[in-house]
Amino acid sequence: MPILHGASASPFVRKVRIVLAIKGIDYDHEQVMPGTTTPEYLEKSPLAKIPCWEDGDLVLPDSSVIVAYLEKLQPEPAVYPSDPADYGRALWYEEYADTACAPAIGPKIFFQRVVIKGLMGKEIDEAAVEKAVAEDLPPVFDYLEGQVPETGDAIVGGKFSIADIAIGTEFVNLHHAGESVDANRWPKLAAYVERVHANPHFAPIIAAEKKSLGLDS
Amino acid sequence: MPILHGASASPFVRKVRIVLAIKGIDYDHEQVMPGTTTPEYLEKSPLAKIPCWEDGDLVLPDSSVIVAYLEKLQPEPAVYPSDPADYGRALWYEEYADTACAPAIGPKIFFQRVVIKGLMGKEIDEAAVEKAVAEDLPPVFDYLEGQVPETGDAIVGGKFSIADIAIGTEFVNLHHAGESVDANRWPKLAAYVERVHANPHFAPIIAAEKKSLGLDS
Repeated sequence: MPILHGASASPFVRKVRIVLAIKGIDYDHEQVMPGTTTPEYLEKSPLAKIPCWEDGDLVLPDSSVIVAYLEKLQPEPAVYPSDPADYGRALWYEEYADTACAPAIGPKIFFQRVVIKGLMGKEIDEAAVEKAVAEDLPPVFDYLEGQVPETGDAIVGGKFSIADIAIGTEFVNLHHAGESVDANRWPKLAAYVERVHANPHFAPIIAAEKKSLGLDS
Repeated sequence: MPILHGASASPFVRKVRIVLAIKGIDYDHEQVMPGTTTPEYLEKSPLAKIPCWEDGDLVLPDSSVIVAYLEKLQPEPAVYPSDPADYGRALWYEEYADTACAPAIGPKIFFQRVVIKGLMGKEIDEAAVEKAVAEDLPPVFDYLEGQVPETGDAIVGGKFSIADIAIGTEFVNLHHAGESVDANRWPKLAAYVERVHANPHFAPIIAAEKKSLGLDS
């Protein structure tokens, strides 16, 4: 049985888990925190990143790489568009989610409120978190507001894809941190995120996480 | 005719240009510096990154996305392995080159010596450059030394691929900056880089760049 290494609350781990659910691929799940630098984990993931996929002697320590590999291994149900231009667009939105949404939401907002305060019970600089909410999120939301569709849960080509999974997973972390998209300022984005999270492959994973993080009140 | 935006000396632009050469795809090339934040360029590349591929209304502002798109658009000659596991491995080496080699070589070594000193004629902190050479490069070289093959120019599956292109392009920048891999300390890596750079799709691009940067003495 292949092993997925990585903590469930990571947006990148969640991205892979949703694709695994869509494709119906079984795996063992090892909870590993990002930044784990034990020699054993660094042997698998030299940059200490999560997730890492391990299947015999195949070790892939990057979420986008894992998802691309899974699509090649088991093409159906497809999570990438088949049209080349739409395929390129979907990959770009995945890249944008991973490299623009994640840094805006992860370290200064989600990690502070959910991990340091919520799970570790430590004090955080709440003013710094609010500053990040006020300054780091709007440019990302502005860009996405101009990209997302008016209806449906598919930003590319009318079909739910890796683009929606990659964007949607970031907003799970935002919600876990007690924030959401202001529907007055970014109405299209707020509604799109809601539709993506209602997707049958997202909804149960979100519900299970909220429960395990004690956020299901 | 599609347009590739991005300065030739960028390792990411070079990665795409080599793939375009292999596939024999024609394009116009617009020299754009990384970090260009004109409203016109940000409209295409919201993170101000290079390269950016523009073909009618299709705009893809990321090198890995562009190359994946080009493979889907024109599958032959292939630049990715066809076996799923090898495909995953190749994507991982591309990711490692882009996110571990590039930060180690680019800003503190290549950009200082070649762009700021060489092209702009400004003073640089050479001691800081030497510190980066001594401290930032060895962990990357150590990892690659354990991965590269004893013979040939293919790190995955015996066939030259995006993995070799992505790794090889980073070492072009290192060489432009007057550094190279110490063959006494990393013999496999030093020999592999030499073989990759001798590949018929790398060699002419390197020669043209050295000439334009005044490095062909």
